[in-house]
Order: sequence, then C-alpha cells, then structure tokens
Amino acid sequence: MLTAYEIIRKKRDGGSLSPGEIELVVREYTSGKIPEYQISSFFMSVFFRGMSDEETLSLTQSMMQTGIVVDLSDIPGCKADKHSTGGVGDKISLMLGPLAAACGARVPMISGRGLGHTGGTVDKLESIHGFRTRLSIEEYKRILREVGIVMSAQSDDLVPADRKMYALRDVTATVESIPLITASIMSKKLAEGIDSLVLDVKVGNGAFMKSLDEARELANKMVRVGRSYGKKVTAYLTDMNQPLGREIGNWNEVVESVKVLRGESDAGDLVHLSTVLTAEMISLCSGEALSTAEAMVRKAIESGAGYEKFLDMVRAQNGDVAAIKNPSQYRSAKVSLDVKSNESGFVTSMDTFKIGMASVKLGAGRLKLHDKIDPTAGISLLKKIGDNVSAGEEIAIIHASDRDRAADAAKDILSSYNLGTDRPSAPQLVRERIAS
Amino acid sequence: MLTAYEIIRKKRDGGSLSPGEIELVVREYTSGKIPEYQISSFFMSVFFRGMSDEETLSLTQSMMQTGIVVDLSDIPGCKADKHSTGGVGDKISLMLGPLAAACGARVPMISGRGLGHTGGTVDKLESIHGFRTRLSIEEYKRILREVGIVMSAQSDDLVPADRKMYALRDVTATVESIPLITASIMSKKLAEGIDSLVLDVKVGNGAFMKSLDEARELANKMVRVGRSYGKKVTAYLTDMNQPLGREIGNWNEVVESVKVLRGESDAGDLVHLSTVLTAEMISLCSGEALSTAEAMVRKAIESGAGYEKFLDMVRAQNGDVAAIKNPSQYRSAKVSLDVKSNESGFVTSMDTFKIGMASVKLGAGRLKLHDKIDPTAGISLLKKIGDNVSAGEEIAIIHASDRDRAADAAKDILSSYNLGTDRPSAPQLVRERIAS
Repeated sequence: MLTAYEIIRKKRDGGSLSPGEIELVVREYTSGKIPEYQISSFFMSVFFRGMSDEETLSLTQSMMQTGIVVDLSDIPGCKADKHSTGGVGDKISLMLGPLAAACGARVPMISGRGLGHTGGTVDKLESIHGFRTRLSIEEYKRILREVGIVMSAQSDDLVPADRKMYALRDVTATVESIPLITASIMSKKLAEGIDSLVLDVKVGNGAFMKSLDEARELANKMVRVGRSYGKKVTAYLTDMNQPLGREIGNWNEVVESVKVLRGESDAGDLVHLSTVLTAEMISLCSGEALSTAEAMVRKAIESGAGYEKFLDMVRAQNGDVAAIKNPSQYRSAKVSLDVKSNESGFVTSMDTFKIGMASVKLGAGRLKLHDKIDPTAGISLLKKIGDNVSAGEEIAIIHASDRDRAADAAKDILSSYNLGTDRPSAPQLVRERIAS
Repeated sequence: MLTAYEIIRKKRDGGSLSPGEIELVVREYTSGKIPEYQISSFFMSVFFRGMSDEETLSLTQSMMQTGIVVDLSDIPGCKADKHSTGGVGDKISLMLGPLAAACGARVPMISGRGLGHTGGTVDKLESIHGFRTRLSIEEYKRILREVGIVMSAQSDDLVPADRKMYALRDVTATVESIPLITASIMSKKLAEGIDSLVLDVKVGNGAFMKSLDEARELANKMVRVGRSYGKKVTAYLTDMNQPLGREIGNWNEVVESVKVLRGESDAGDLVHLSTVLTAEMISLCSGEALSTAEAMVRKAIESGAGYEKFLDMVRAQNGDVAAIKNPSQYRSAKVSLDVKSNESGFVTSMDTFKIGMASVKLGAGRLKLHDKIDPTAGISLLKKIGDNVSAGEEIAIIHASDRDRAADAAKDILSSYNLGTDRPSAPQLVRERIAS
C-alpha cells in the first residue's frame, strides 16, 4: 500500500487512485493520522488533475463510511430526497417535502444550515418556535415512519470526514473542484439511507456555479456517482440569476412556503419549481410519467394534503402549529423599511449574490461560524426581473432588528437592481434536466 | 493587499503574483503566521502553474531576506562560488575551491550536507579530524580574506525560510518544481555575498533531474534569476549516469580529491570536470578566455599551488593537516570487502542512484535526519562505463564498519552494474554550457 506522500504524488502526476488508496487518505485524515498540510496539497492535486467517476465514487463511499450510515430498510415505501446546491430565497424543500410525502413518498431529509450568502433549510425551520431539528436516529426513523416526512439537521456522527475536509478546503482555495464537491454532497445524501434523489444544481449570479457548463459538469458527476451506488438520481439545472420567490430570510420564507402549500401564493417561480422537482421525486419512486406526477402534486396543493403533511411534521418535531396556522399574528421584525426606486424602467437584472449577502448582514445568516440567527430578519422583494418600476415606487421591504442595519441593507438592495428601458424576457427557470 | 487565501487562489487560477504578494507568503510562513496547510496548497499550485522569472526572482529575494545576507564588499577581489545540484561521488568543490583560490578568485563556499542518495561537501570535510564547518560570520570573513577560500556549513540564520519550506515540500510532494528549486538554491547562494556563480546541473540516473530537458529548464531559470539579481552566472549540464571519479563516501572522497590536487589521480572525469568548472569561475571573475583560464588551472595543479591552498584552508579551519599529507596512514574502515563480477563483458551502464543509496546505507550518508555519519564507510569503484570486466574480477571494494553491511552493499553494487558484449562509447561528461 502506498503512503500518503506517494498517493499525493501519484495524483499530482495524473495517476488514477485505487479505492484502497482513497480510503486510506480519507480514513487517516479523519482520524488525525495524516496531517492537514498533506491533505491540502492532495486537494490541490485533485483540483488540477480531477478524478474519474470510479475515484469520485470511492471518495464518496470512503467519506460516508467515516460515520453513521442510516438504515431505512425496515421502513416500507420509497425513500426519496432532494438536494439543492444552494441559492438565495431557495425554500423549495419546505414545500417539496410535504407535497412528496402527501403523494406517497417517504422523505428523510437531512439538511444544512446557511452557507455563505445562501440560506439553509434548518435555519428556516428553527424560526418556528419549538421546532426540533436535532433528532436521534430513533426519533428520525419514528417520525419518518409515522408522518412520511422528517426534516433533521446533520448530526456530528454523519460523515465526519466531510466537516473536516470542507473546513480545510475552505481556507486552502480547494473548494471549487467538481469531484470534491460531488463527494461532499453525495456522501451526506447517501448516508441518509435513501432510494432516490433529485438534484437541483443552481446556476447564475446567486449560485456557487456561475456558468451552465460548470453546473452541467457537476450535475453529471453527481448523477453518475449516485447511480453507480445503485440509487435513482435525476438532476436539474435551474436559474439563480434572481432570488426564488419573493421572500429571503427565515420566518418570512416559512410563511411564503405555507402560502404555496395553501394554494395562496402568487410567486409563480416558486410554485412551478416546487411542482417540477416534487413530480420528479414521485416519478423516480413510482415510475409514473412526469405529467401524471405533476398532476398529483397540483392536486396535493389544491386538496390541502401537502399543507396538512407540513402541519403533521411541525407537530411531530415539536414546532408551534398555531404559528403556521396564523403566521401574521406570530412574529415579525422590529423594524420594517421600504426600499424605493430612484428611477423608472424594467428590472433587467439583479445582483443575487449581493441580495443574499444583504440578508446575511441583516442577521438572517451568519458572517461568523457562531453568529446567532435573527429569525425575523430578511427581505421581501416586490419587484423581480421583467417587472415595471416607477420612480419612487417600492421595490422591496427590509425586515430588521434596528434602523441602521435596515438602512444599510436598503442601500445594498437598491444597488442590486438594474433597470432598463426595454422589458427583458423572463429568465428560463428550468434550464436542463439530466436524466441519464 | 491580498490575504494568503487570495494569493493561493490567484496562483491556482494562473495569475501572476506581485513581489509584495510573494514576500507576504514567505515572510508570514517563516514567522509562523500562515499555517503549513495553506503553504502546501500554495506550493502545489506553483507546481502546476509555474512561476515567471520575475516571480521566481521575488521568491528568491523574499526567502533570502528572511535571514542574514553576508556582506563581503570590504574584501577585495572577485568572490566566486559553484553549486552542484547533487550527485554520487561529486567531490568537485574540494578541488575547484582551492584551485580557483590559487588562481586569484576568492571562494566563500557555504555547502550542504548529504541529501537523499547524494553526498554533501560538509560531511566530507568533517571526515578530516578537527575540521570546523560551523563558523561565525567573522571567522568566515577572516579566513576568506587571509586564505582566499573558506568552506562553511549553512548556519541557522542563513535563509531560514528555505529550511522550513524544504522540509514541508519534502512531505507534500512539491519538491519537483523548477521555480521552487531555483529559489531554494539561489536564495542560499546569493546570501553568501558572491559576485559570480557557476552552476553544475547534474542530469542522469544518479541526479535529481533525470532528463536533459528538465535539467536545461532548471539551469536556464537559475541563470536568469542570478543575472536579474546582478550576478555573473554560467550553468553546465553534466552527466550523472555514473558516479564521478572512483570514490564514494567521505574520507575516501577527500583522499581522492587530494590526489587530483597533487596531480596523482587517474580519474580522468574528475580532473576534467574540476578543470572546466574552475576555469569557468576564473573566466567569469577575470574575463580571461576559457582556454587561458584552463591553462591557469592546469598550472595550479602542476605547481602544487592548489594543493597548498587546500592545506592552508584545512589549517585555517582547524583540520588535521598531517592527515591530508599522509592520508593512507590516517584512517580506514574496519572491514574491506572486494566485489567480484560473476560474468564477463563491458560495463554498459550503472544504476547510479542505487550505488548512492548503497553508500548511504553503509553509513556514508543519513537515512534519518539525525543519523551519524561513518566517515570511513564508502565504496571504491574499480570499473566504470566502457571498462572491460572478466568473470571473477574485482569491480569494486566496499569499506564498512561490519561484514553484514558490507555484504549487503556488495549485492547492491553487483546488481548496479550492467555488462554487455559491445564496448559502449563513454558518456559525454559535459553536456551543455549555458552562458546566456
């Protein structure tokens, strides 16, 4: 067996690593036997040399095996999940999970917290008073069995290798590597014990992948790795050149999601993408045609079955159901500030990254690891790409804990909007579907 | 100013680093502010992206400036040195230094110890009883002024960055990078306070550079960096497909060098290369034609002036001059073992790396950092490429401290010789001269 040094050298020189070699690196780094300075030069070699699908699968499995792999085989039904690479206002999971469960899938979701300028499902759920995201494996399985959906935070014993590796990649400029991103995402998803997975790879100025080519390469790699592992996987490339829906934050995103589930939302992009991705999950599980599955999802909204499933989950995870039923009476930010446009025109583009960062700075996300989230902080967008704006008209509302922060965010939001004289065509929300 | 993270990222993405950016990395790594895991990913980025001459010069200067830079401006005359990238049996410095000094140059040599399978000048000198290689700057300058030559070990305050960087490169598979090798060598040589430098870049199966192309690239880079810094620099690419001369070890290499200085050696390659490289040093310093300089060197051998200079230096550095005068009565290994050939033929090639490692294992070099050198251990080669060998004839003699080690080395040496039926042409010793 090669030493860590020899493995770095082999990858550096363009060689293909065996499963045993990859397993050694992951295992011994996680256990502290291989020092960080060797792994960082290994990551940089992978950045330059890439990894074959076989190597990426080995990396994914080796990472997964450093922690608990949940066994859901004793729970009947098709276990399905969705993963998004992260965006601004991306609250799809909150609708997709209950709708898929209402249509018969079992949805064991283990989600992350906000990362950089993007929000995280766990932070959003925790804006519901009492909602517990730290569940034992037993609780997790019980709720999945009884309700059909469970939404949990990642526990420390799930893929510990990923936490260590990601923290190091983050400070050594080795984040942007397709095989390393693939293994990071797929190791966590495969450890959940799922049968099928829908991947939502965001692309655009608010996504980690800026170009369609990169996004497609990542999506393809993840699909191939998931299938090699024996799972049903489909990926979508979807637009992140403007936030999804109208709300960015935590509690306000929950409220917007509840509106969609109740059939009361006018955010067409949100309703559309939730429907498409949920239908894909159902289709992967049941084999139904996508059109049939979409009709099932629409019915689950109209009948209120998805909304009821959401309430069941909130109840099962100790959340305040009354808050979901009467959100406007529940909680709101101390300060509310209207952002008004200085000029007239059509919204031609939005700096989505900047909007995401404005929300983080308001307290909806974390600038430092241990920052506390302000659940009511956030932004409501009144205008999106293609909308007409008059000078003096409100384009957004800032929700904040104090006036200074609100004023700063208002400036950021104002400068994030670009207006023009011609109405642009609306961005294509679903860019590609990668099914094979 | 960019942060360390941003500098890694810039190099990773193919950007050109400013002198300030390079200086920041070197200074803050040396002072412990930048962690090893960031520098190792930086080194790997440099491995893949390379460095321009400007960047390499900045790296060289930044490394040099982490320690003492010797000022020899108050010593009259041209201060000249030679550096070899390392080989087996490479004792050229022991002859070249005294010969150049005898011809009027001032030779302030700061040398290394053995590295891997190659020997080091300092280890060889220390096989002379009493010889001091750890000199203060004052002693170093005084001996240079009075004798015209001084041979010192690298002190801890000369380019501390290099020691730290090299140790890390050694375990992160980032040694084999032309700009990093260039900066490592040139920072140490330029810190000596020299005016001119001859570089001997070894190429072949006993060298760190295996191909002529690599060796040429390194030589050109070092020449350009040295000249940009205002020094006179010439490089030679010389053969290392067999050991230089007949002796490999420490004390036996000193003895062989003394023979050359006394005009008593039959090792043609050693006499030739010493003459060529010393003549280049003199020519660089004085502007004499190479042919004139070569005649001066030959005269310094014939007249014994070079030998006298060597004795003066040994005396000045506290070495036992009697040992040099009567080397055979001085010290020898406990065990002497003849290596005899099993077959007949012409020596067609030699595994020079293996021969070097055999010498190291005998105790002439170090397998671990703090191993103690056995000054009498080594190998005498009786046959070299092109020589005729009869079955049963002696091809080498092993000098060792015990029979077991000697027997192991004998096996290694036997398998390092390849015999054939046709006499091969002798390898071309001086492959290329890079003067501009």
